[in-house]
Amino acid sequence: MTNTKRSKTELSELGEFGLIRRLTENIVLKNESTLKGVGDDCAVLDFKNKKIVVTTDLLTEGVHFNLMYVPLKHLGYKAVTVNLSDVYAMNATPKQITVSIAVSAKMSVEALDELYSGIYLACDRYSVDLVGGDTTTSLTGLTISVTAIGEAEEEELVYRNGAKNTDLLCVTGDLGGAYMGLQLLERENEVFKVNPKMTPQFAGYDYILERQLKPEARKDMLQIFRDLEIKPTSMIDISDGLSSEILHLCTQSEVGCRLYEDRLLYDNQTKKMAAELNINPLVAALNGGEDYELLFTIPVADHDKIRNHPDISVIGHITDKSEGVNLITAGIGQSIPLQAQGWNPLKD
Amino acid sequence: MTNTKRSKTELSELGEFGLIRRLTENIVLKNESTLKGVGDDCAVLDFKNKKIVVTTDLLTEGVHFNLMYVPLKHLGYKAVTVNLSDVYAMNATPKQITVSIAVSAKMSVEALDELYSGIYLACDRYSVDLVGGDTTTSLTGLTISVTAIGEAEEEELVYRNGAKNTDLLCVTGDLGGAYMGLQLLERENEVFKVNPKMTPQFAGYDYILERQLKPEARKDMLQIFRDLEIKPTSMIDISDGLSSEILHLCTQSEVGCRLYEDRLLYDNQTKKMAAELNINPLVAALNGGEDYELLFTIPVADHDKIRNHPDISVIGHITDKSEGVNLITAGIGQSIPLQAQGWNPLKD
Repeated sequence: MTNTKRSKTELSELGEFGLIRRLTENIVLKNESTLKGVGDDCAVLDFKNKKIVVTTDLLTEGVHFNLMYVPLKHLGYKAVTVNLSDVYAMNATPKQITVSIAVSAKMSVEALDELYSGIYLACDRYSVDLVGGDTTTSLTGLTISVTAIGEAEEEELVYRNGAKNTDLLCVTGDLGGAYMGLQLLERENEVFKVNPKMTPQFAGYDYILERQLKPEARKDMLQIFRDLEIKPTSMIDISDGLSSEILHLCTQSEVGCRLYEDRLLYDNQTKKMAAELNINPLVAALNGGEDYELLFTIPVADHDKIRNHPDISVIGHITDKSEGVNLITAGIGQSIPLQAQGWNPLKD
Repeated sequence: MTNTKRSKTELSELGEFGLIRRLTENIVLKNESTLKGVGDDCAVLDFKNKKIVVTTDLLTEGVHFNLMYVPLKHLGYKAVTVNLSDVYAMNATPKQITVSIAVSAKMSVEALDELYSGIYLACDRYSVDLVGGDTTTSLTGLTISVTAIGEAEEEELVYRNGAKNTDLLCVTGDLGGAYMGLQLLERENEVFKVNPKMTPQFAGYDYILERQLKPEARKDMLQIFRDLEIKPTSMIDISDGLSSEILHLCTQSEVGCRLYEDRLLYDNQTKKMAAELNINPLVAALNGGEDYELLFTIPVADHDKIRNHPDISVIGHITDKSEGVNLITAGIGQSIPLQAQGWNPLKD
């Protein structure tokens, strides 16, 4: 399961500037708004009269990823898409990214090529330009910092604070898959550590593995919203788990919410893995995180526009703040206050 | 010399969102171009018709800083100013930053308060808004990633590639101080490790210590260029050492250069420390780095405009590419090809 080791060039053979050249020399800029990319003190951008959105993430080895089972190409891809997801959550279009990495001196040039091949694949698929970054060493593991920049017309932007009483709470796609994929990877990694000759048992779980290792950002929703003639009243992407994100929306919008357990959608692989590991898929959806789906609210009057859309589920509705933020359980319909148990990197 | 330990709150007591709130709740946005700062999926910015510049840096503990002798407040300040320096090197005005940190779980909340007090001090002094970031853990040391965003009119921007044959090569301020400050800090740290009761010998070296620990970016030069009615033909900031930066300018501008040793300016403390440690200050200037002065070229016709300016030295001139990039030594005037021996984080 480890990353394959082929020919191996020491980083020191290239030096910092040689490495930067190698990693960036094939860039072809795609966006009109990118006037100047890598190669000067700064990149230069031009968004004319549009508004600009900026987001950034920092991923550290051992905390956000385990190189024992995360292929570097996938890691590069994911490091980009998780940032783009934040841009889409503003209803904006990502246009540029910067990528900074700190690598241990023992990492090979070929390994970095792999990492960047994933970064560039994401850049291609999402039509963004890599316009800058920093390349340095760390005394220990790999650290990746990505900043994404996007654009939108002012009237298109969707914030977290616009949800109104009676709005419908909606989510794209299915939930909990990335978390169950992670559980599977960790299980097989434990098996591998005990007996490296064992073949990992991944058959039939390609979807949840991909949800964990190579998540996509919901680029398609920008167009779907336009086609449906919908503008969400509030929106956020699901990186820390549904609970945590609903609480963000409700806190910032100063509203309450009822979330219906029986409206949550799971993929069959998510359910199967959850059963196998004796985990309630609800827990994976609420607290697992990393689904990178979009959670948003729309006026109840827009219900007909989305009613039969295959990518959108209505999972609840907004209430007055005084009613609190509650999960309505399936079956008996018990009301339980939602708690943010999303991934907390500072709590382990 | 270590960071003082006072009351100590565990990070886990606050959790990620509590920590973010604590570190960002007192932000007052200063710039008209900042429509929305911390608190949504993205920050939202509006530069109207101006061009936008973006730069980013990643600093890792043990490679870029040693917490044994770098106070956290200074570190926060420096992490910001080194990025702003890149913005000024485009002849642009910084307006926003994002700051991401990965901290070991053993770091206290009070220590992070110190780090952020330095970050906010820099934000105040340079009138930039902190508009986003990420807060997470690392398994080992502290990592800081800063992205700076600035604005300029298109005709104001200065790139690295505009130097022309016969242009004058100029530099702001004095060189080599940051490197000599680092040597002093490392010497005293070695003494301290052997005998923690020894008082560090810093008297009379406040300037070079400040050059290393709390460097300023040359914000003043934007106005000075305007007042002198000068627009550099090319510009870069000195982060890796004069050699490396001159080679960048010459490579990108496809020109050669003659740099005169006897035109380089050193502060008295730099010279004194260099003598004490038996280091040639020229080496500190050429290869030491971290001076964060601006290196730029102007047409020879503009010589009179800068001739007596206290902040600007003419240190050489641009030649045809075929003549190469050379240092002309003091005294006998020997011509020696410049080599990039700037700080290479991948070579140690």
